[in-house]
Amino acid sequence: MLNQDRYFDPNPQVREIARELYSSVKDLPIISPHGHVDPRIFAENTPFPSPTELFIIPDHYIYRMLYSQGIPLEELGIPTQDGTPVEKDHRKIWQIFGKHFYLYAGTPTGAWLTHEFEDVFGITEKLNGDNAQEIYDHISAKLQTPEFLPRTLFNKFNIEVLSTTDGASDSLEYHKQINNSDWNGKVIPSFRPDAVVNILAANWKDEIAKLSSASGIDVNNYKSFIAAIENRREFFKQMGAVSTDQGILSPFTHQLTDDEADAIFQRALNGNASVEDERLFIANMLMEMARMSSEDGLVMQIHPGSFRNHNQVIFNRFGLDKGCDIPVQTEYTKNMHELLNKYGNDPKLTIILFTLDESNYSRELAPLAGHYPALKLGPAWWFHDSIEGMTRYRQMVTETAGFYNTVGFNDDTRAFLSIPARHDLSRRVDSNFLAGLAARHIINIDEAKELSYQLANGLVKKAYNL
Amino acid sequence: MLNQDRYFDPNPQVREIARELYSSVKDLPIISPHGHVDPRIFAENTPFPSPTELFIIPDHYIYRMLYSQGIPLEELGIPTQDGTPVEKDHRKIWQIFGKHFYLYAGTPTGAWLTHEFEDVFGITEKLNGDNAQEIYDHISAKLQTPEFLPRTLFNKFNIEVLSTTDGASDSLEYHKQINNSDWNGKVIPSFRPDAVVNILAANWKDEIAKLSSASGIDVNNYKSFIAAIENRREFFKQMGAVSTDQGILSPFTHQLTDDEADAIFQRALNGNASVEDERLFIANMLMEMARMSSEDGLVMQIHPGSFRNHNQVIFNRFGLDKGCDIPVQTEYTKNMHELLNKYGNDPKLTIILFTLDESNYSRELAPLAGHYPALKLGPAWWFHDSIEGMTRYRQMVTETAGFYNTVGFNDDTRAFLSIPARHDLSRRVDSNFLAGLAARHIINIDEAKELSYQLANGLVKKAYNL
Amino acid sequence: MLNQDRYFDPNPQVREIARELYSSVKDLPIISPHGHVDPRIFAENTPFPSPTELFIIPDHYIYRMLYSQGIPLEELGIPTQDGTPVEKDHRKIWQIFGKHFYLYAGTPTGAWLTHEFEDVFGITEKLNGDNAQEIYDHISAKLQTPEFLPRTLFNKFNIEVLSTTDGASDSLEYHKQINNSDWNGKVIPSFRPDAVVNILAANWKDEIAKLSSASGIDVNNYKSFIAAIENRREFFKQMGAVSTDQGILSPFTHQLTDDEADAIFQRALNGNASVEDERLFIANMLMEMARMSSEDGLVMQIHPGSFRNHNQVIFNRFGLDKGCDIPVQTEYTKNMHELLNKYGNDPKLTIILFTLDESNYSRELAPLAGHYPALKLGPAWWFHDSIEGMTRYRQMVTETAGFYNTVGFNDDTRAFLSIPARHDLSRRVDSNFLAGLAARHIINIDEAKELSYQLANGLVKKAYNL
Repeated sequence: MLNQDRYFDPNPQVREIARELYSSVKDLPIISPHGHVDPRIFAENTPFPSPTELFIIPDHYIYRMLYSQGIPLEELGIPTQDGTPVEKDHRKIWQIFGKHFYLYAGTPTGAWLTHEFEDVFGITEKLNGDNAQEIYDHISAKLQTPEFLPRTLFNKFNIEVLSTTDGASDSLEYHKQINNSDWNGKVIPSFRPDAVVNILAANWKDEIAKLSSASGIDVNNYKSFIAAIENRREFFKQMGAVSTDQGILSPFTHQLTDDEADAIFQRALNGNASVEDERLFIANMLMEMARMSSEDGLVMQIHPGSFRNHNQVIFNRFGLDKGCDIPVQTEYTKNMHELLNKYGNDPKLTIILFTLDESNYSRELAPLAGHYPALKLGPAWWFHDSIEGMTRYRQMVTETAGFYNTVGFNDDTRAFLSIPARHDLSRRVDSNFLAGLAARHIINIDEAKELSYQLANGLVKKAYNL
Repeated sequence: MLNQDRYFDPNPQVREIARELYSSVKDLPIISPHGHVDPRIFAENTPFPSPTELFIIPDHYIYRMLYSQGIPLEELGIPTQDGTPVEKDHRKIWQIFGKHFYLYAGTPTGAWLTHEFEDVFGITEKLNGDNAQEIYDHISAKLQTPEFLPRTLFNKFNIEVLSTTDGASDSLEYHKQINNSDWNGKVIPSFRPDAVVNILAANWKDEIAKLSSASGIDVNNYKSFIAAIENRREFFKQMGAVSTDQGILSPFTHQLTDDEADAIFQRALNGNASVEDERLFIANMLMEMARMSSEDGLVMQIHPGSFRNHNQVIFNRFGLDKGCDIPVQTEYTKNMHELLNKYGNDPKLTIILFTLDESNYSRELAPLAGHYPALKLGPAWWFHDSIEGMTRYRQMVTETAGFYNTVGFNDDTRAFLSIPARHDLSRRVDSNFLAGLAARHIINIDEAKELSYQLANGLVKKAYNL
Repeated sequence: MLNQDRYFDPNPQVREIARELYSSVKDLPIISPHGHVDPRIFAENTPFPSPTELFIIPDHYIYRMLYSQGIPLEELGIPTQDGTPVEKDHRKIWQIFGKHFYLYAGTPTGAWLTHEFEDVFGITEKLNGDNAQEIYDHISAKLQTPEFLPRTLFNKFNIEVLSTTDGASDSLEYHKQINNSDWNGKVIPSFRPDAVVNILAANWKDEIAKLSSASGIDVNNYKSFIAAIENRREFFKQMGAVSTDQGILSPFTHQLTDDEADAIFQRALNGNASVEDERLFIANMLMEMARMSSEDGLVMQIHPGSFRNHNQVIFNRFGLDKGCDIPVQTEYTKNMHELLNKYGNDPKLTIILFTLDESNYSRELAPLAGHYPALKLGPAWWFHDSIEGMTRYRQMVTETAGFYNTVGFNDDTRAFLSIPARHDLSRRVDSNFLAGLAARHIINIDEAKELSYQLANGLVKKAYNL
C-alpha cells in the first residue's frame, strides 16, 4: 500500500528530484521537540494494550471522524466523566473502526495509519469490515513481543530526542525514572503552565495548591505566584527541558503593573475574577514568560487560536480533548505588538509562534518572523499538519520569511506509534516542495539539498538548542 | 471549442486517471437540490424567449461583468423599478454581449456559456462582435423547435430532480401544475422564509399578511408566527420539499425566550424594531428552524455572508439581485456555538453550511463538520463555484472533514440552460482532484472510483434524502 | 544561474506555451506607473555609489532578512536618527551580506538580486562569503563606467515611463530638471498627500506649513486645506502626473460635512485631535480625493492595511521604512461602501485598490471589481509581489473579476536596478499562469497571446491613461 513515491508530484522531473532529496533525509534521526506522548510508557516499558486502546480510545484525531458520521462516542469506548458504562468489547469497537476506515480517505490520519499498519506491523491490506478481526489479531500478537515494547520501538524509530508537555506542578516522576534507568533514550519535559494561568478554570484553586506544593512556595499573591513559576521552570530545566509552551485563545499581550496583576490574582483567589481579568492576566503572563525565557534561555512556544471544548455536551460527558476544539480567527500584528516591542529584538531569545488560522501565514506571521530576530514560525499545526496544509504553509511563508525563520517539524502527537509516519510525511512533503522550486529553477540543486537537511534536522536543533 | 480534456491537469498520468473517473460519472443523472430556476417554465412549457431574454437580461452573473467595464445596465435591457425605458432591441443588446464576450476569458461564466452554446445549440465558434447576429439567429431558430421546449430539455439534460427555492407564502401553484400534468419531471420546492424573518425589510408587514393568508393563521404575535411557519413547512413537505434555506448576513445563533421574541415581534409590527432586534430575531429563527428540522426532517441549509444590494444606486433603480451583492468576512465558530450545542449532536438532523469566505474552509468549517454529526458542508458557492474555487474547497476541506462530511454539488442557478454545463464542470474538477490524489498515491484507484460516484451522486442523495 | 525556463511549470506542455507567451512580451517596454525611485538620480545622472550603498543600505527588503537572523542594523551601516555611529566600512557590510546570501533562497529578493547580478553586471556565480569581495570589486568597477550611469541604464532597461511617488508639498525640482534636460526619459510624479492628511503625525503642523508655502494658499482651515490640495494636484498634473496615491491603515470611507471636517481640522491645529478625529478625517479625505479624481481625471490609488513602524525600537533609532511595517486584517466591503456608492458607478473614474490581506482577493476585492465600473484591482503588492503571491492573486481574482478589471504590474520599488528583474519575473509568472489555463483548455492559445500582451502592457497603459 505504501508506494515509494507517495505524496510526490507526478511530474517526472519534480518526482526525480524529490526522490533524491527524500533519500538524503529519510534516515536522519527523528527530533520531536513538541508533543504529548505520555512519558510513563517509557518509564514502565510494559507491552502496549489492545489495538483499540492503542489506536482509537486515546486519539481524538481518529474518533472525531467516526463521531461526525453519527457513531456515538460510547460505542467507541470513550470513558465518561461520571463513569456511565461505555462499550468495553474492544473487538466490537475495532470492527466499527474497520468498517468505517474508508472515511479517512484523503486525510492525514488515513495516511499515518496506513504507514503505521504497514511499516510498524507489516500489514499490507487496507483495513475494512472484512479483515478487521484478522488485523486486530495480527496487531495484538505483535504487541506482546519484545520487539514492540515502547523503549525498543523508540530506538527502532531512531528518535534522538522526544519532548513531552507537562503541567507546571508535574513531579516529572516518569522523566526521573527514565533518567535513572539503564535505557539511554532521551525523553525531556516542556513547561506548560496553562492550568495555573487560566484563573477562571473550574479547578484553578486546586492547581494553585498543587503549584504551592510542587514549588515549596506558598502561592498566595502575584509575587509568590511568579516566584513559584520561576522555581518550576528552573526544575524543568534541570530535568532537561529546553522549552515552554502556552495554549491560549488569543495572542493578546500586555504588561500589567505588579499591583494590577496582584489585584486580579486576589480576585481570582476570592472567586471574583471577571472574563476581562483573565484576559489581562493571560496577556501579562505571556509578557512574563517572555521575560523569564530571556533570562533562563528556555524557548517560548505559543499555540493560540483554539476555542476549546466547543461542544459542551461532549465536554460535560467525556471531558477535555475529545476532538471538539475548533479554531477561531486570530490576530497577531496588534496583539503581539507589546511583547515584540519589549522582547522581539533580542537575538538570544527564541519565541516560536503557531497558528490555526492560515490566513495569517502570508499576512502577519511571515512578515513578523521576517523582521523580529527573536521570532520564528512553528510548522503547520494540528488540522494543517497534512500534505496540503504543509504545502500551503511553505507556499505562503517562504517568500517573505525564507526557510531560516522556520523551525522544522513538530509532530505534536499523543500517538507514539504515529511518530515515524508523521515525520516521514513531513520529510516527503518538504522534499517535494523543494523539488518543485528546483524544477522551476527558483533554487538550484545544491541549495535544495542543504535546505532538505535544514528542514529535517538542522533548523529544529538550532531553534530548540538541541 | 470544447476540448474533451478540458479542466484536467496536463500531467499525462493525472489526465489519464481524470479521464477514467470522469467517464464513469459523466452520464449519471443530474441531482439539483438547491437552485433558483423558475418552476413556471416547466408548468407552462412554452418556448423560451429571445436569446437576449434567455441569457442576458435575467442573469446577473453575465451582466455584472459588462457593467464593471462601463456598460450601463440600461443598454443591456435590464428593466428599471420605475419603468423608465431601457434598451428594447434584443439584437442590439446581443451585439454588445458578443463584442465583449472576450471579457469572460478565464471565468466560469465563460466556461458555462461556451458549453451551452456548443453542447445545447451546436455552436462551435467563439462568440464575438462579427458573428453575434448569426449566432443570435441560430439560437432563436432552435428555441422555436419542440426539442427546445423546457420539459424536453429537462429530460434531455437527464435531470433526476430539480429543487427550486420558494418564499414561505408561495402558493407553489406551478409545482402543483407540474405534479398534476402528465409530465413526470421531478421539480420540488424548498422553503426559504427570509422575507418573513427579516423584520426590518421595507415590505415585511406585507409579507406577514401574505403568510397569514397562505397559512390560514392570523399572524399577530410570535406564537402565531411560529405556528404559521410550521404550517407552511408542512405544506412544502407535502409538496415534495426536502429542505429549507436561509440567506443571512451573519450566522449568529441565539435562542430567545418566547417573551423576548414576542416583544421584538410586536415592535416590528409597530415599526419600532431596531437593528439589534432584527439581529436577535434572525439568530433566534435559526435556532427555531433547526428545532423544526429536527422534528419534521427537512434538511436545513444556511447561506451566510453576503452584503446584499451593496450598490444602492443600482438597487434603487433596478431592484434586488442585480449583481451587487458582495461577500463579507464571516465567523462561524462563535456564531454557531449555541445552535450546534443544542442541535449539532443529533445524527438524524442535517444542517448544510455554505460560505463566501474561503478563509473559513480550513479554519472553521472543516473542523466543525469533521466533528458535529448534524453538520455537513455545502459545495463551493457562488463566486467560488468555479474551477479554482472548487479546487481550493477540496484542498482546504478534505484533510480535516474528509469527503463524507460534504454533500456533492449544487448548481444554485437561475439559468436553466446552464445546469448541464455546471454539473459537467463540477464532475470534471472533482475527477481531476481525485486523479491528483491517486497519482500521488494518497488514495488508490478503487477509492478514487468510489469517491467519484459519491461526489457526483451518492453524497447529494444521502444528504438531501433523495 | 538564470535558467531560461525559470519560474515556468515543469510540465512540458505548460512550459512550451509559457515560453511562447513570454517570448512575445519579454522585450515590450517597461511601464512603471507606481514606485519609489528617487528622481534625483536621473536629474543629476552621476555614477551610483558603492555596491553596499546601492544594494543594501537603502533597501529594507534586503536588510530585514539579515536583521531577522540577528544581525544588528548598525553592522549593516543603516544610519541612525541621532547620528550615533554605525558601520562605515562598506566592504565589511558587503561581506556580511555575501556570507548570509543563502538566507534569500526561495524569496523574490533572492530572485531579483540574482537577475540583477547576472543580467546587469554579468556575474554568473552565486554570491557567498568567499567571493563577496571579488564581486564587490566587479560591481564597483562597472558602476564607474558610462554604461552604468542612471540615464543610460534607464534607456537600456527600455523603460517607457517611470512614476515616482511624491509628497503634496514636493517642489518636483528633480522632475523639472529632467524635463528641462536634453534627456528624453519619461519620469513623472504621483501625488501622495499622506503627510498632510495624517493629522496626528508628529510633524503634521510642519507639513501644513510646507503645504501653505508650496500652494501659496494660507492653510488655516478645512476650506483652505482642500483648496491647497486641489492646487497641488493641478501642479502635479501639469508636471505629468497621471495618478494619486494614499497609504492608510484602514480603507474606511465617510463623507463629513464641511463643518465637521473643519472642527476636526481646528482641533488638529490646536493639538487636540483624537484618534477618532484622525480616523474620520482620513475617511473623509478618501471621499474628497475620489471627488477630485472624478473632476481632474487623476487615477486614484489606495494602499491600505499596513501597520507602519510596528517595531518602535527600530523606528526610534532608525526612522521610517526600515522593514518593520506589518500587514493587518483589512475589510473593504463595509469600509468602501460609502465611497463606492458615491463614486463607484462613474465609468470615467479609475480607483485602483491594493491589499496586503490576501483573504480579500476572492472574498471582497474580485466581487467589488467585478461589479463597480470605477474600480480596478492593483497587482499583488509588497510581500505578495512574488512568484507564489502573483500566482495566488491570479487564481483568486480571475474567475470573478476577469483579467480586464486588473491593471497589469507595478514594481513599487525604491531599487532602480531591480526594475527589469521585477518586470521580468512578473511577465514570466503571468505567462506561466496563462499557459496553465491554455494547457487545461480554459482559454485557447489566441486568447492567451492577447492576454499576455494585456497583462504586460495593454492594461497598465489603459488604466493609467498612459
